[in-house]
Amino acid sequence: MTDLSSVLSRADQNLDASIERLFELLRIKSISTDPAFKNDCRQAAEWLVADLTALGFEASVRQTAGHPMVVGHYPGPSADAPHVLFYGHYDVQPVDPIELWEDDPFDPKIKDLGNGRKVLTGRGSADDKGQLMTFVEACRAYKDVHGHLPVRVTVLFEGEEESGSPSLKPFLDAHADELKADYALVCDTGMWDADTPAITASLRGLVGEEIIVTAANRDLHSGMYGGAAANPIQILSKILAGLHDETGRVTVEGFYDGVEETPSNIKSAWDNLTGGRNDFLGEVGLSELAGEKGRSMLELLWARPTCEINGINGGYTGQGFKTVIASKASAKVSFRLVGQQDPAKIRENFRAYVRSKMPKDCTVEFLEHGSSPALQLGYDSPVLTKAKTALSEEWAKPALVIGSGGSIPIVGDFQNLLGMESLLVGFGLSDDGVHSPNEKYDLKSFHKGIRSWIRIMAALAA
Amino acid sequence: MTDLSSVLSRADQNLDASIERLFELLRIKSISTDPAFKNDCRQAAEWLVADLTALGFEASVRQTAGHPMVVGHYPGPSADAPHVLFYGHYDVQPVDPIELWEDDPFDPKIKDLGNGRKVLTGRGSADDKGQLMTFVEACRAYKDVHGHLPVRVTVLFEGEEESGSPSLKPFLDAHADELKADYALVCDTGMWDADTPAITASLRGLVGEEIIVTAANRDLHSGMYGGAAANPIQILSKILAGLHDETGRVTVEGFYDGVEETPSNIKSAWDNLTGGRNDFLGEVGLSELAGEKGRSMLELLWARPTCEINGINGGYTGQGFKTVIASKASAKVSFRLVGQQDPAKIRENFRAYVRSKMPKDCTVEFLEHGSSPALQLGYDSPVLTKAKTALSEEWAKPALVIGSGGSIPIVGDFQNLLGMESLLVGFGLSDDGVHSPNEKYDLKSFHKGIRSWIRIMAALAA
Repeated sequence: MTDLSSVLSRADQNLDASIERLFELLRIKSISTDPAFKNDCRQAAEWLVADLTALGFEASVRQTAGHPMVVGHYPGPSADAPHVLFYGHYDVQPVDPIELWEDDPFDPKIKDLGNGRKVLTGRGSADDKGQLMTFVEACRAYKDVHGHLPVRVTVLFEGEEESGSPSLKPFLDAHADELKADYALVCDTGMWDADTPAITASLRGLVGEEIIVTAANRDLHSGMYGGAAANPIQILSKILAGLHDETGRVTVEGFYDGVEETPSNIKSAWDNLTGGRNDFLGEVGLSELAGEKGRSMLELLWARPTCEINGINGGYTGQGFKTVIASKASAKVSFRLVGQQDPAKIRENFRAYVRSKMPKDCTVEFLEHGSSPALQLGYDSPVLTKAKTALSEEWAKPALVIGSGGSIPIVGDFQNLLGMESLLVGFGLSDDGVHSPNEKYDLKSFHKGIRSWIRIMAALAA
Repeated sequence: MTDLSSVLSRADQNLDASIERLFELLRIKSISTDPAFKNDCRQAAEWLVADLTALGFEASVRQTAGHPMVVGHYPGPSADAPHVLFYGHYDVQPVDPIELWEDDPFDPKIKDLGNGRKVLTGRGSADDKGQLMTFVEACRAYKDVHGHLPVRVTVLFEGEEESGSPSLKPFLDAHADELKADYALVCDTGMWDADTPAITASLRGLVGEEIIVTAANRDLHSGMYGGAAANPIQILSKILAGLHDETGRVTVEGFYDGVEETPSNIKSAWDNLTGGRNDFLGEVGLSELAGEKGRSMLELLWARPTCEINGINGGYTGQGFKTVIASKASAKVSFRLVGQQDPAKIRENFRAYVRSKMPKDCTVEFLEHGSSPALQLGYDSPVLTKAKTALSEEWAKPALVIGSGGSIPIVGDFQNLLGMESLLVGFGLSDDGVHSPNEKYDLKSFHKGIRSWIRIMAALAA
């Protein structure tokens, strides 16, 4: 038996106990957004510290202005071994509507769905307690066999991920020296499908803006004033309609600065993807690709920037009709960013565009709603290549390198505050019910997830 | 004291009681467009019937499919006396945004604005309860002094004017014999300025439409779907933005069919008008003429058709931000018509235009919100001439013959269904806040309005 296969066997032998440990953690109601569960959050942090300590980590609960962080260090085989920071979060979403749960969200169990599929039930099973425990159990199996880990490991478990992570940046700032590693491992993403592992290599950034157009200083009668007085909804419509040209490209000046074409081999790989997401649009009643013309769905979702109107309001919107020319109209607009797009510059150029469309006697007000840059991890960094091989070996299907249309702010914070790239590997599935009733985590995801981290750690150490 | 001056004196003596009666009517929340106020509308109709009956009218509440009509008859001094049909409406506009009202819209009061100007506050004070009561109070003063009215009078008070008058045509059709008179008196228009009375001789028509665009069958996360899934707000913005070209002309096919250029002598007369409306736009915080380029303000308001967006709604419009792609977005759109424009054809061509802009996998639904053609009344009919003289005597300034940007569909219906011309006299001012928060009616408009109708009735009887 090779070194690696004995560790994998050990993980298999440990599985029942690993599940029992996860269930202990799942029973703690660590809902971060609800102050009623403050003590539960602390209890989850303490449980993790105890478990890490039992494993040989130097671990502690760290106070923040909100829920505590858990930090643990494991020295690794030598001072020059690769050093990874593993990130997960122990807090969970609220459980309402509770009446839609088939089982108690805080009394986890193994459920047989038939066809050989078993799942672990409960709030947090997939997001993110089940995922973070895959790494902890991988460490345990390694330690059981070899008495040490193959790499230096720091773990950081957050308790506020589901409530906006207010304490995270200050904590990273204050403890940069302690937390900086060669790279971060983040386990909060999904697989391509139940058989196909995936590494998420790009995350879109976000710029949120609200614009409020004011024309007359009061609502006007459209008979008395119509045709002579400015209509803010009409002005706003022209502004919003002008944000995309007829090919679906965003027209804001310099918008595509820093956007690179996806390498053709990556695009081909995406084009060849099959699996559960083929009816992605059909599931929501759509059939046509919107957005930029001439691009595939996955490219549009993972590798292209967007401008979306998220809300609009103005004039009379109740039942019936009112012949009014409104004084004000407003819209919420967001941009999803990729590559090196600069959120500040895009906000500035968007505002300049809007101002350029305003009649002289009308005004516009802007409200800023947050921003984060996109993250593009190297498609061919050595870490990604090693992880890809390790995952492909475990799952017997080649691991895919995919993108995510959404944002995971921690990845940006690691890059900006700690100068550290992240490797995003996770074992969630699209039907996990994350943030919904009946959240579950596939037993296979949990088991093979543990084995995957064993392989990845071994590969990183090699 | 002449017969006329004793009636005018009596109106002066009655004024306090007249105001108190109007306030009773204003306290009734007769918002016709909102089904929640159905009983209030009925209550307003019943109040009017009671008041007319007390005055000696044979009056009754008449059922319709919607809110009821009020019809009253007064025989006049002889069977061959001139017979007028007086029209007004007892329904009012909704009051939102309620937070912008300085006073309770349904608790009217007399407010002193300084410089001797007093106003009557409340929703409906100017549009149209205050106006219709000028005529009722004129009848009362006449009756008080002479025991009868100088002309035969039929009154028709409608309860659906602010919501498209769906029951009006069927009612006129069914009761044509009862309602037909020599001509109609309509009191729902304005003065030129606070000192200058006006008779309105042209009215724009109206087509009201609501469009509801549906894309996906549920709201989507803009990170997961943004860039690939259709956004109904973006589709709607493009549709609305395309309704006007860069010169401000409406782009709907055939829209200008039936629109004639205003005769140059009328345009010159309008250009020479001075008075309170010179700062018409300035009063509402605007300074630039919107709409079609190269036309004067009065031409734009009185003689040119428009397309206005009266309301728009979609996606998240609350505090903060939500990265959502909405399933639906909707807009209320209206067209003001002039000359011989055909409302049915314009509605049809508008819908064809909207449908032509819809992506294949999205749908659009249309709701019809009433229509009426434009109207041009004779500039020199005997009735108009008599009324002009009467008004000029009351206000000590020559009455002007003007146009109106608004629609009063009843005028077309009287013409088409009852073969009867209308005389449009009203005492509203441009700062009345009709359809807006803080609606008011000048006490002087109310008082001299009553006196004006006394003079007009006397002139018509002569």
